[in-house]
Amino acid sequence: MIEPLGLDPFLMYRILDRTTVPEYLCSIPAVAEKLGSPEGLEVQEIGNGNLNFVYRVCRRDDPSNSVILKQAVPYLRMVGEEWPLGRDRMTFEIRALQQYNDLVPAYVPTIFHADEKMSTLVMQCLDRHEILRQGLIEGRRFPNVGRHIGEFLAETLFRTSSLAMDSQARRALMNQFTLNAELCKLTEEFIFTFPYMEHESNYSNPVTDQWARENLRNHAAYKLGIMKFKELFLTKTDALLHADLHTGSLMVNADETYIIDMEFAYFGPFGFDVGKIMANFFMCATSHLHRTADAAYVNWLLEQAYVIWQTFATRFRQLWDATASSAMMMPGMLSPQEEAAFKDRTMRQVLHDTVGFAACSIARRTLGIAGVADIRGLPDLDKRAELEILNLKLSMQLMAAHESVDSIDDLTRLVRDFYAPHLSSSRG
Amino acid sequence: MIEPLGLDPFLMYRILDRTTVPEYLCSIPAVAEKLGSPEGLEVQEIGNGNLNFVYRVCRRDDPSNSVILKQAVPYLRMVGEEWPLGRDRMTFEIRALQQYNDLVPAYVPTIFHADEKMSTLVMQCLDRHEILRQGLIEGRRFPNVGRHIGEFLAETLFRTSSLAMDSQARRALMNQFTLNAELCKLTEEFIFTFPYMEHESNYSNPVTDQWARENLRNHAAYKLGIMKFKELFLTKTDALLHADLHTGSLMVNADETYIIDMEFAYFGPFGFDVGKIMANFFMCATSHLHRTADAAYVNWLLEQAYVIWQTFATRFRQLWDATASSAMMMPGMLSPQEEAAFKDRTMRQVLHDTVGFAACSIARRTLGIAGVADIRGLPDLDKRAELEILNLKLSMQLMAAHESVDSIDDLTRLVRDFYAPHLSSSRG
Repeated sequence: MIEPLGLDPFLMYRILDRTTVPEYLCSIPAVAEKLGSPEGLEVQEIGNGNLNFVYRVCRRDDPSNSVILKQAVPYLRMVGEEWPLGRDRMTFEIRALQQYNDLVPAYVPTIFHADEKMSTLVMQCLDRHEILRQGLIEGRRFPNVGRHIGEFLAETLFRTSSLAMDSQARRALMNQFTLNAELCKLTEEFIFTFPYMEHESNYSNPVTDQWARENLRNHAAYKLGIMKFKELFLTKTDALLHADLHTGSLMVNADETYIIDMEFAYFGPFGFDVGKIMANFFMCATSHLHRTADAAYVNWLLEQAYVIWQTFATRFRQLWDATASSAMMMPGMLSPQEEAAFKDRTMRQVLHDTVGFAACSIARRTLGIAGVADIRGLPDLDKRAELEILNLKLSMQLMAAHESVDSIDDLTRLVRDFYAPHLSSSRG
Repeated sequence: MIEPLGLDPFLMYRILDRTTVPEYLCSIPAVAEKLGSPEGLEVQEIGNGNLNFVYRVCRRDDPSNSVILKQAVPYLRMVGEEWPLGRDRMTFEIRALQQYNDLVPAYVPTIFHADEKMSTLVMQCLDRHEILRQGLIEGRRFPNVGRHIGEFLAETLFRTSSLAMDSQARRALMNQFTLNAELCKLTEEFIFTFPYMEHESNYSNPVTDQWARENLRNHAAYKLGIMKFKELFLTKTDALLHADLHTGSLMVNADETYIIDMEFAYFGPFGFDVGKIMANFFMCATSHLHRTADAAYVNWLLEQAYVIWQTFATRFRQLWDATASSAMMMPGMLSPQEEAAFKDRTMRQVLHDTVGFAACSIARRTLGIAGVADIRGLPDLDKRAELEILNLKLSMQLMAAHESVDSIDDLTRLVRDFYAPHLSSSRG
């Protein structure tokens, strides 16, 4: 189904639009079988894609018979042709989604068709789900979401790592993602570089800006911390990452959680996926100091970060204990005590990295071009600045503490202590 | 000149022998131009290749007009067809040698022709050079060798790293080596696994064995150190490594140093190449406690390890200071003080890793299948055991100290203190 990269990449490519989508879909036997003939199909462009075109296609006489068609164009959709962006990104999304369909089918859309040459992906339509970020902004609870995220992280990160795979299979899988270079570069610059310097791409809120200039952009230890995690992002290949796992990349309802938008997928450090999603819960908690001023809801959000780590770490360790042999683990090399000590050290290291990457994610979402709607959606600039500075302070505390946070309880204590004074005042 | 991997790999492949080599070479215009007609060529098989066939080909009437032809066969040459080994290894050797020809032409053979499909490499014949290991075993000095190795390391490691390259070019280069999986696996097992457990492949000298069982294979902190470096070997992609840089991979004379045999090349941690070559000088020093019992020569060998690091670190830092921008270094992000602190930290980290990888290399060469002739060449098993145990003690001291060795002076002190008692007794 998937063609290799680089063979006449433009030969079989054309940009689809609402009028050509039905014909295209029905030329694919597996999709035609599901949707029927092109006549009677309704095509709706869905606006949530910043990078790509996304269409919802259904039968007019049976709207529940529907698919999602996603196509990458050779530019950034939200800007236009003046911002060229290789459509190889769809190739990597396809490959990652195929991996995830093998590893965690319950947490990702089913694939009906994928075509690297057309940069298209036809998949399950998540009609009964909403973007998690929006639900959280509105102050709603999703009882399973933390556990689902933790399980997704454990299954995908462990099973694509050298702790699970044999060496050659792992390098073959890695080879499918090495060239996702353009999107890696975006991350390197927009998460690990621009927010910590004066840069035209940065978001500007004068009060926040001034605070950052006086307290963060001149803080040597903090910036050396950022450099440490930039270096890990660039050179560590622990596992296949989603690499853009924020609350806008999740579609949820009361029962189910789906992970979408994996075009940034590449082999990177374990802590990046874990830290990024936890950071998004923290930033939402900050926003709710103002949005709902509901201490119980803020605490629920903070608890989700706890549940994510707890589920992730427990399941990761279970999977590891159940794996007899892998590139890293050769039976007979370590005694049971040595093996337990090695696993403890590894989990602690992943937690350290998680905390550091969370710090980077928070700073980037506060100072960089891509904010979180949780905060940027607030109309009052001064209120926003107050919350932004709070987030920056959290980022700096996390970075300062990342090497001494040796358990999730340490982290939970740090975070609860950080929010406590603001919770009492917001309740009062 | 180079064809991509994976396209009908066996279509154009055939195994050459002494009788077919002349015809083959002269079918390549660039080589025919140098060597002339197939008649009058003398073909000599050179025995030093464990993995591959290596031929020296010259004109009978002008022996100085010569080339080396190296061909990989789909098995391990030293064992035979019963040990299959993909001949892709030649593809990676070709690619690495091409990189090195661009980066450090003075230190590698010139390429006359390379053919990934035929798994052949035709290159400069190093007639006036000898294998460094043999020269050192015989107690000779090569005045430039430490400096040359240090320069080779600095140029190749820095220039293929994210400190020098831009992000996308680096990932494209990395992509050329990701699939060198079979040889990476050999390293993972033979350097980082088997020596530390009971394994049939291990070398066996009863006295050494017993010492290792009682002091090393049950030493939890040491083995967790080995696991740390195994993990780095598997998952860290700092730069393009030679990845088999020992004194048998160098051809030298009084003036020149050439690096050969780069089939293990892959993207790995900086410290692996540096630590491995330094470890080989240490092990040779140990052998000369007995071979020549010449304290001055032992000290010269230890000094070479110092010169390698000093040259490497100085040149690496110079290259870095002269590089305005790279994937890691964005002008304007760090203040000059922060940048200096980041560079200091990085160099210190590379030294820590170098010391740890040196520890692994020594243990592997002492307990594993592939010993060094420096020691294994000694006929007296008891004398050998004495030196082997000394090497294992050095490995354990290096591993225990690797995180506290913060400068080359720290390392030099450790190593000199280690050898001092044995030097006085060997002199006395």
